[in-house]
Amino acid sequence: MARRARNRRDPGALASAAPPSPFIRRRLPFFDVLGEEEIARLEDQVDWILQEVGIDFRDDPDALRLWKEAGADVRECRVRAPADWIRDLCAKAPREFTQLARNPARSVTIGGANQVFAPIYGAPFVRDLEGGRRYGDLAALEKLVKLAYMHPNLHHTGLVIVEPCDVPVSHRHLDMLYLHMTCSDKPHLGAITEMSRAQDSVDMAEILHGKEVMDANCVIMGNVNTNSPLLVDKVVTQSIRTYCGRGQGIIVVPFILSGAMGPVSTAASVTQAMAEAMICCAYAQLIRPGAPFVLGNFLSSMSLKSGAPTFGMPEPVISNYAIGQMARRAGLPLRCGGSLTASKIEDAQAAYESADSMHSTMLAGANYVLHAAGWLEGGLCTGFEKLVMDADRLGGYQKVLGEGLAVDDESLARDAYGEVRPGGHFLGCAHTMRHYAGAFYEPALSDSENVESWEEGGGKDMRMRAFERWNAMLERYEPPALDEAKVEELQDYVARRKREIPEAWY
Amino acid sequence: MARRARNRRDPGALASAAPPSPFIRRRLPFFDVLGEEEIARLEDQVDWILQEVGIDFRDDPDALRLWKEAGADVRECRVRAPADWIRDLCAKAPREFTQLARNPARSVTIGGANQVFAPIYGAPFVRDLEGGRRYGDLAALEKLVKLAYMHPNLHHTGLVIVEPCDVPVSHRHLDMLYLHMTCSDKPHLGAITEMSRAQDSVDMAEILHGKEVMDANCVIMGNVNTNSPLLVDKVVTQSIRTYCGRGQGIIVVPFILSGAMGPVSTAASVTQAMAEAMICCAYAQLIRPGAPFVLGNFLSSMSLKSGAPTFGMPEPVISNYAIGQMARRAGLPLRCGGSLTASKIEDAQAAYESADSMHSTMLAGANYVLHAAGWLEGGLCTGFEKLVMDADRLGGYQKVLGEGLAVDDESLARDAYGEVRPGGHFLGCAHTMRHYAGAFYEPALSDSENVESWEEGGGKDMRMRAFERWNAMLERYEPPALDEAKVEELQDYVARRKREIPEAWY
Repeated sequence: MARRARNRRDPGALASAAPPSPFIRRRLPFFDVLGEEEIARLEDQVDWILQEVGIDFRDDPDALRLWKEAGADVRECRVRAPADWIRDLCAKAPREFTQLARNPARSVTIGGANQVFAPIYGAPFVRDLEGGRRYGDLAALEKLVKLAYMHPNLHHTGLVIVEPCDVPVSHRHLDMLYLHMTCSDKPHLGAITEMSRAQDSVDMAEILHGKEVMDANCVIMGNVNTNSPLLVDKVVTQSIRTYCGRGQGIIVVPFILSGAMGPVSTAASVTQAMAEAMICCAYAQLIRPGAPFVLGNFLSSMSLKSGAPTFGMPEPVISNYAIGQMARRAGLPLRCGGSLTASKIEDAQAAYESADSMHSTMLAGANYVLHAAGWLEGGLCTGFEKLVMDADRLGGYQKVLGEGLAVDDESLARDAYGEVRPGGHFLGCAHTMRHYAGAFYEPALSDSENVESWEEGGGKDMRMRAFERWNAMLERYEPPALDEAKVEELQDYVARRKREIPEAWY
Repeated sequence: MARRARNRRDPGALASAAPPSPFIRRRLPFFDVLGEEEIARLEDQVDWILQEVGIDFRDDPDALRLWKEAGADVRECRVRAPADWIRDLCAKAPREFTQLARNPARSVTIGGANQVFAPIYGAPFVRDLEGGRRYGDLAALEKLVKLAYMHPNLHHTGLVIVEPCDVPVSHRHLDMLYLHMTCSDKPHLGAITEMSRAQDSVDMAEILHGKEVMDANCVIMGNVNTNSPLLVDKVVTQSIRTYCGRGQGIIVVPFILSGAMGPVSTAASVTQAMAEAMICCAYAQLIRPGAPFVLGNFLSSMSLKSGAPTFGMPEPVISNYAIGQMARRAGLPLRCGGSLTASKIEDAQAAYESADSMHSTMLAGANYVLHAAGWLEGGLCTGFEKLVMDADRLGGYQKVLGEGLAVDDESLARDAYGEVRPGGHFLGCAHTMRHYAGAFYEPALSDSENVESWEEGGGKDMRMRAFERWNAMLERYEPPALDEAKVEELQDYVARRKREIPEAWY
């Protein structure tokens, strides 16, 4: 039976363009790791950083002018502000908001008890079993956008799934946005690296969604890092002005390698991340009260042997749990964690680290999870196999979060005990027949056969099965429908901007 | 720097015969997934199974007689009993107890907020990178006992790390016990498969520890499965009589594949496991009030494709969290979970599944974790590489549990913000210098180097590094000291019993 079942298997079979749920509505309770006294001490430290230490806003006189006018204590570029005031400003940000997708069935709600998974962001390299490791290019990005679109366990396509290094840096954002807008109808991000690129993102979103829809909804977001420690540069403030000024969303993420960009202490790094992100949220609310904002945290540990960042380790695991609780207290949507690893290939190290990182990300209640699939080499490389391997596991997390433990008459199954005697089995009883088909999450890439069947099937490891799966998925890719006039308008926009913007390769 | 660091690396270097802590004293709060109403419904169902459905005690008239005399409702072999009475009996079991090791520095406390990790139990096959997959033998078991003894992240050596299939079945327990008692000084388990083998285990423990110590302490435990659903056979009741009758411990574990040995529902399977284990606990307390008892749960999901058990899936993950909370409410030490997988080799599937299984096992508060390292193929095969790979990850869990998030003046690091300006770095500041060395868990088998250094080093995946590590560990194995007279007494006992017990191969 096992063998027949395997032969019927189609490695692309579970690829679906119509997921049952466009995001996760969490029913599982949250995991609070901090007691009241610990929270009070951490929040007191956040307040101390905001009020006493202060945060630099550099290279952007407009931002400093606004802080001054609003009443902050501004000396040179250091901004200090009463913590109560910053918290009041943060309270203007929505606890949850919807990012509208061009296909409304795929819109995601970010914040509250909702959780949204998106692929890796920003890797310059790409790797697959056939082509090996190489620089990313537009062809690879197109395939990755299609896979993120097709995979039922990814809710959002992010943006830079890999850097298209064959396109001039100054033109990349245009080609990336065009791919996400035409090859997928899931929500995605816009560019942030320069103000004009952020503006192009917003303008192309307006073409795709129309001015009226965009006036009334968040349809695009930017994702931007502070320069930890305690430094916010113009890339952040200009992105906030461009996205939030147009009523769109912004994700601000302190990236802290404890011991380098923050103290060598998880508690201190978490408070620093809270302070950096909260002051950016306050700035966004000064720009536009009610602007959708996601508080980010990307905290990693370090190898004593190499000084390199490490992932899936106990310190970032604990930081996910702690920042989850802190963000809920602050009433702000959270981005943290992901399926992170320092491994170079899709081996056991990659999977152990990714699973511990992602299990804690999931339980922590992260509302928007960038890097949920495809990450290798500390984020330097996107793996095609890794993308579908991670995404396969995300379905399990979706079930844990979305269902929790059902406790009702039907799940208690008393009728089954009327049918089955001690020492018997429940395989054929009525309760089993009613629930068998939906009882278990069945990942596409996990092999549960016995060793003989597995060997007869070629003894393929998960990596090889993942290679077959993403290739099979791409073979059946069909683009989602899009009004031809809009496609042309986007193409014209991209062509015009490429003529206007000089080619630059760095 | 990275390269020099690697060249200095010694794959056996972190192997230590003197762990800093012989078990985990948990400081991390527990994760409660069930609300009061859900707990009440689940406990009501446990009571209903005990009172109305009943549990069969087969092939052991002594057990039925005791139940009858104690006042249970016994019809044929079905035992029904008032739930309050069963709960009162269970309350006689200690909430936590110490299993004394022959080296007192290695004694473990089981129950309460303590957590103890032990290797895989019961696999007939063994696998390593050089020798491939083969039947287990005494030579393999000896190596595995030594590795479990040497590894700082394993607190307990279990018993059947692999089946020594080259020894007659009827003699195996003697050789296994001798190996655990002489090659290691960590605590371990005894045999349960027949009453005489359980008795041999207890008798050999008495030789090792002396009668007086054994009279006053738990020095050995048995681990035994019920025959789910709702069936307790004589292997269980005789083991309880042999171990608990001598004041020793017993672990009773319902093994439920949902849909086969229990309803196809996690909630129902968890209540069934509670009822089966609790009635065995009550029986143990009738035999000897205060007998050390561990309530077990081994719940797995199923593949719809092959009907085979699956591991690391959302249903067993949730069951770990739920049974953790139920066991804490019942005040009984818990065994559940482990680093479980259906994968045949040490690939990414094995690691993803093991990590999700073990992460939930850890957070659930499992007090005694059998199968925490080395498990492959749904438990049919012990992997040498898998053993050290899993154990490497256990160190991270130990830190998450044992430290949680430290929040105090030193961890808040305010002095560091006096030294480091915005945009600077904390690498050389005084706080970092004070804490750098102990700040991060550094797994021996995770490679965090850049891709160039990793390739220059041979591009070894985790499996290959694990192979090198366990071989290097064994090269530096030194047996723990043991009184020569005791060694001889144990040898004499084993020799005498081998003469007395006929060789049997099945």
